[in-house]
Amino acid sequence: MLLSGGVDSATTLAIAQAQGFECHALSFSYGQRHGVELAAARRIAQAFGVDHKVLEIDLRAFGGSALTDEIAVPKDRPIDDSIPVTYVPARNTIFLSFALAWAEVLGARDIFIGVNALDYSGYPDCRPDYIAAFQKLADLATKAGVEGARFRVHTPLIEMTKADIIRKGLELGVDYALTFSCYDPSPAGEPCGRCDACLIRAKGFAEVFTHDERRTMHAL
Amino acid sequence: MLLSGGVDSATTLAIAQAQGFECHALSFSYGQRHGVELAAARRIAQAFGVDHKVLEIDLRAFGGSALTDEIAVPKDRPIDDSIPVTYVPARNTIFLSFALAWAEVLGARDIFIGVNALDYSGYPDCRPDYIAAFQKLADLATKAGVEGARFRVHTPLIEMTKADIIRKGLELGVDYALTFSCYDPSPAGEPCGRCDACLIRAKGFAEVFTHDERRTMHAL
Repeated sequence: MLLSGGVDSATTLAIAQAQGFECHALSFSYGQRHGVELAAARRIAQAFGVDHKVLEIDLRAFGGSALTDEIAVPKDRPIDDSIPVTYVPARNTIFLSFALAWAEVLGARDIFIGVNALDYSGYPDCRPDYIAAFQKLADLATKAGVEGARFRVHTPLIEMTKADIIRKGLELGVDYALTFSCYDPSPAGEPCGRCDACLIRAKGFAEVFTHDERRTMHAL
Repeated sequence: MLLSGGVDSATTLAIAQAQGFECHALSFSYGQRHGVELAAARRIAQAFGVDHKVLEIDLRAFGGSALTDEIAVPKDRPIDDSIPVTYVPARNTIFLSFALAWAEVLGARDIFIGVNALDYSGYPDCRPDYIAAFQKLADLATKAGVEGARFRVHTPLIEMTKADIIRKGLELGVDYALTFSCYDPSPAGEPCGRCDACLIRAKGFAEVFTHDERRTMHAL
């Protein structure tokens, strides 16, 4: 399973574990501005007691995104259906390809990814059609597929709102204080509070908790 | 375009250039035993005068192949339809995903890969069905695709024999002495002459050149 260190991937891990899967978590150091996310991924993997690998891949070699290039992260943007400059070209395809490689080596057939097609940032590689196409590719791409295995790409959050995701995670015992979402943290690792990721996160928590509850939960 | 440094990718580059494409070549240092291949890729890119990037990706983190793990490369194996231990799980999917990312950043829509479904080593990710599935995925995966672009994965060698590939390359001026194919070179970088890659290469050249011609062409 892909583990970024955010709300969605932490919840996906909790769901996969609750379904009885023995989980192996994969994160990427991809030249992103938010290396602090990786620390969150490590904390979450440890909290769930799962095997965790962090691979270095240099997506800054290509650039083309506010997360991998010298492009400013938009702030206080109304979230609409457009694809923002934080889109990283082919990112989920690269991530899922590595997950497929590791799955095949492990003998695993189930890949979990916390993509979400409702409360998301308009990324094309979070949509159900895309996931279905990758799943089809996985069987054709691999020795395991040729030998009859059928890979499944699980997207348990794909139709959920951010508030539903948080409610589900709380039910499964996720400690969201371990997670991190901001695209543009301060050098000290504090979230900016104004990028898409911060705004979507805040909106989700605002629907689940009262103002007073949130005041006592600084990390959320 | 993906450039490994072997006969097929060098020929593919020559074909793409002859078709009028402005080429950008991508190679990977993936923990393979044959780092000497990368030197060949650099020589070829230079000979063709094309932009060339080499990305480091650590496929040894997963292992599972004679090219990325402590598994012996088979020697003097009869080439059949089985998938050999030199198969690297999901390798072409990982390579094509990075190529897609770079293509999208460049504004390119054409990706070239020198896969071959005839004189090959039985790898699943060299078959036409697999390539078609990746091409479909590319449109769904990207901002460019959402905006109406149609990516094309070109596989000019897919139905050619190794001998035909070499003939085509010679016609286009490829200097095959620059290329390197062996899966298991000596520490000094000499090809073993007995792995699948060496055997397929030798068979191809044997069909194109006479014994005496080959005697004077040591590098082939």
